[in-house]
Amino acid sequence: VAVADSAVVCPHCDAVGDLRHSWRCTSCNGPWDLVDWLIPSPADLGAGLASTGPSWLAALDPVSLGEPVTPLVGLDDLAQGAKVYGKLEGSLPTGSFKDRGSRALVGWLRSVCSDHVAIDSSGNAGASMAAYCAAADVDCDVYVPATASAAKLAQIRAYGARVFAVDGSRSDVTEAAMSAGDVATYASHMWNPYFLVGTRTFAFEVATQLAATGSSVASVVFPLGSGSLLLGAYHGFRALLSAGLIARMPRLVGVQAAACAPLARSFTDAFPDGPCSGSIAEGILVAKPPRADAVTAAIAETGGTVVVVEEPEIASAHTQLARRGVYVEPTSATALAGLRRLPRSEEQAADGATILALTGSGLKSAAPPS
Amino acid sequence: VAVADSAVVCPHCDAVGDLRHSWRCTSCNGPWDLVDWLIPSPADLGAGLASTGPSWLAALDPVSLGEPVTPLVGLDDLAQGAKVYGKLEGSLPTGSFKDRGSRALVGWLRSVCSDHVAIDSSGNAGASMAAYCAAADVDCDVYVPATASAAKLAQIRAYGARVFAVDGSRSDVTEAAMSAGDVATYASHMWNPYFLVGTRTFAFEVATQLAATGSSVASVVFPLGSGSLLLGAYHGFRALLSAGLIARMPRLVGVQAAACAPLARSFTDAFPDGPCSGSIAEGILVAKPPRADAVTAAIAETGGTVVVVEEPEIASAHTQLARRGVYVEPTSATALAGLRRLPRSEEQAADGATILALTGSGLKSAAPPS
Repeated sequence: VAVADSAVVCPHCDAVGDLRHSWRCTSCNGPWDLVDWLIPSPADLGAGLASTGPSWLAALDPVSLGEPVTPLVGLDDLAQGAKVYGKLEGSLPTGSFKDRGSRALVGWLRSVCSDHVAIDSSGNAGASMAAYCAAADVDCDVYVPATASAAKLAQIRAYGARVFAVDGSRSDVTEAAMSAGDVATYASHMWNPYFLVGTRTFAFEVATQLAATGSSVASVVFPLGSGSLLLGAYHGFRALLSAGLIARMPRLVGVQAAACAPLARSFTDAFPDGPCSGSIAEGILVAKPPRADAVTAAIAETGGTVVVVEEPEIASAHTQLARRGVYVEPTSATALAGLRRLPRSEEQAADGATILALTGSGLKSAAPPS
Repeated sequence: VAVADSAVVCPHCDAVGDLRHSWRCTSCNGPWDLVDWLIPSPADLGAGLASTGPSWLAALDPVSLGEPVTPLVGLDDLAQGAKVYGKLEGSLPTGSFKDRGSRALVGWLRSVCSDHVAIDSSGNAGASMAAYCAAADVDCDVYVPATASAAKLAQIRAYGARVFAVDGSRSDVTEAAMSAGDVATYASHMWNPYFLVGTRTFAFEVATQLAATGSSVASVVFPLGSGSLLLGAYHGFRALLSAGLIARMPRLVGVQAAACAPLARSFTDAFPDGPCSGSIAEGILVAKPPRADAVTAAIAETGGTVVVVEEPEIASAHTQLARRGVYVEPTSATALAGLRRLPRSEEQAADGATILALTGSGLKSAAPPS
């Protein structure tokens, strides 16, 4: 595997390109896939995971902020009849799963000698990219809505990133970051395929952790916004299946808030047409996920679905998790709320465990709903 | 080892007692030590650490919130000439090292069938005890100053603990919690020796992690308030030394803020006599540490010292850590500020590594100084 592999292909129109020169397809403006997904060897996958990550990732990126293998906590008491675990992504260095993707993405940036990056995120992705850029000595410009809360920006600023407040809509913020591409590399976690290279580690960890208990992954339930964790995990489980390290693909289930459920369209006729604002699950309010087609296809291929949950269900799930000692972002609580929406018979019948992706620390939310 | 071992002895006056019946020495009002410190067998210690904790702790406490082995991150770039690592305690479930102690303490509470506890802490200890009590189905009453910030209380309340605001001084708050002992077990992390049983795991982890790299621990630098982490680590390293698993005791160094440095008295003539308020290192502003004598003796025995740092040094260290991607509480940054105060020759000459105990997540502090 070439360290600085930047050959990309467009899954929509089959155009090919170089990620160093264009962050999206030069033909149809869609998101690039990597030509070579840097799939670890079966030996590397089977060797398990050191806390500093498998060797294939270390080769890509020597920067580490000390990523632990995130804990799996048994939550059977919250889901009668099913074997359920929560995976606590809040224990990652900046407090969310985004660190998996940022580590790989910043590793690629370094390997292609990019020392100045522009992104648009006022939330967990912004903080995560700012942290890994700080560790890698890459300048990081973060474009945020002028209305972004000071609390969210405090962590981003602490890492030394430059914050640019943009008046206007969320799309205006994205446009501003994209326009910075003249002097900086635009590297959105929603667009850059290296982010997915990193989020695959979610699958590698879960499979390894469950195998150690003699069990396997039957299904994974994800809070679903742009799908960068779900899609990375899909690629990860595919790699494990190809290597013969798991016997079947887990069912991948996405959960969206009723306030913003564009990815539910393919799975239910009764999808709501929300404004993509006004939900406590702020981390998944993505109106137009760039990789919507790929996410939908991955879910369908695994026999999964997308379920939609209402605000009171999210708040209730958040409280239930906290009341048994698991403090997560309201966004993460959608995973438990979504599990409750699934027909119980499906989860009970599954031979193996259901994993809830608890994507971020409760400390991320200044004002929890409970 | 008896699961519910509650036999205690007073190190000051040699009185003996039962921890179930009195939370402090019935003769001189000092803090109890355990008669049997539940020292793990050399086999258990040598077997390394599973993410769910060593078996001796599991026997004490089946409650787990998914404690990872906290990461060790190389920080040589911040300390010229010395081999330095930061241990990121913020990746523990509630975001601070307190979870090590709370897990053991709540395990003891359960084993003696105590289902109602009273504590006094508006900070990390309060959040940590509230979380483990939630997981263990133990009612938790948290007494706080009426002036405690809403942000700090949000996490405590989320876990379902009851919060009692007390007018008056910090001592008045402690008195109120102690007085609750009629209906609830008073279980302060500063007083209950089981908290130290748990914080020993800091030493077990560090020694195991460094041994895996072919190195060893030369010294550990701790933010120093009540000393519950330093003293637990001392007991842990002693157990490792007795088992022949380490060759020498590391030098233990405490760092106090100039605003509150009662434990510096024994080590320097030039100690400040601060008001124990007004520092950004809010987690170590403890005017009268109950175990002051034991902490001082442990430090002296290892050839360590207590250094005092000023506010600008703490703020600078906090910024330096964040600017290389390590986001900690201002309190934790005192460890780096203290390291800078140590004569460089001492650290360079040491054969082995210096560990900075980075005690809590930066997400704990709503308004970081940088």
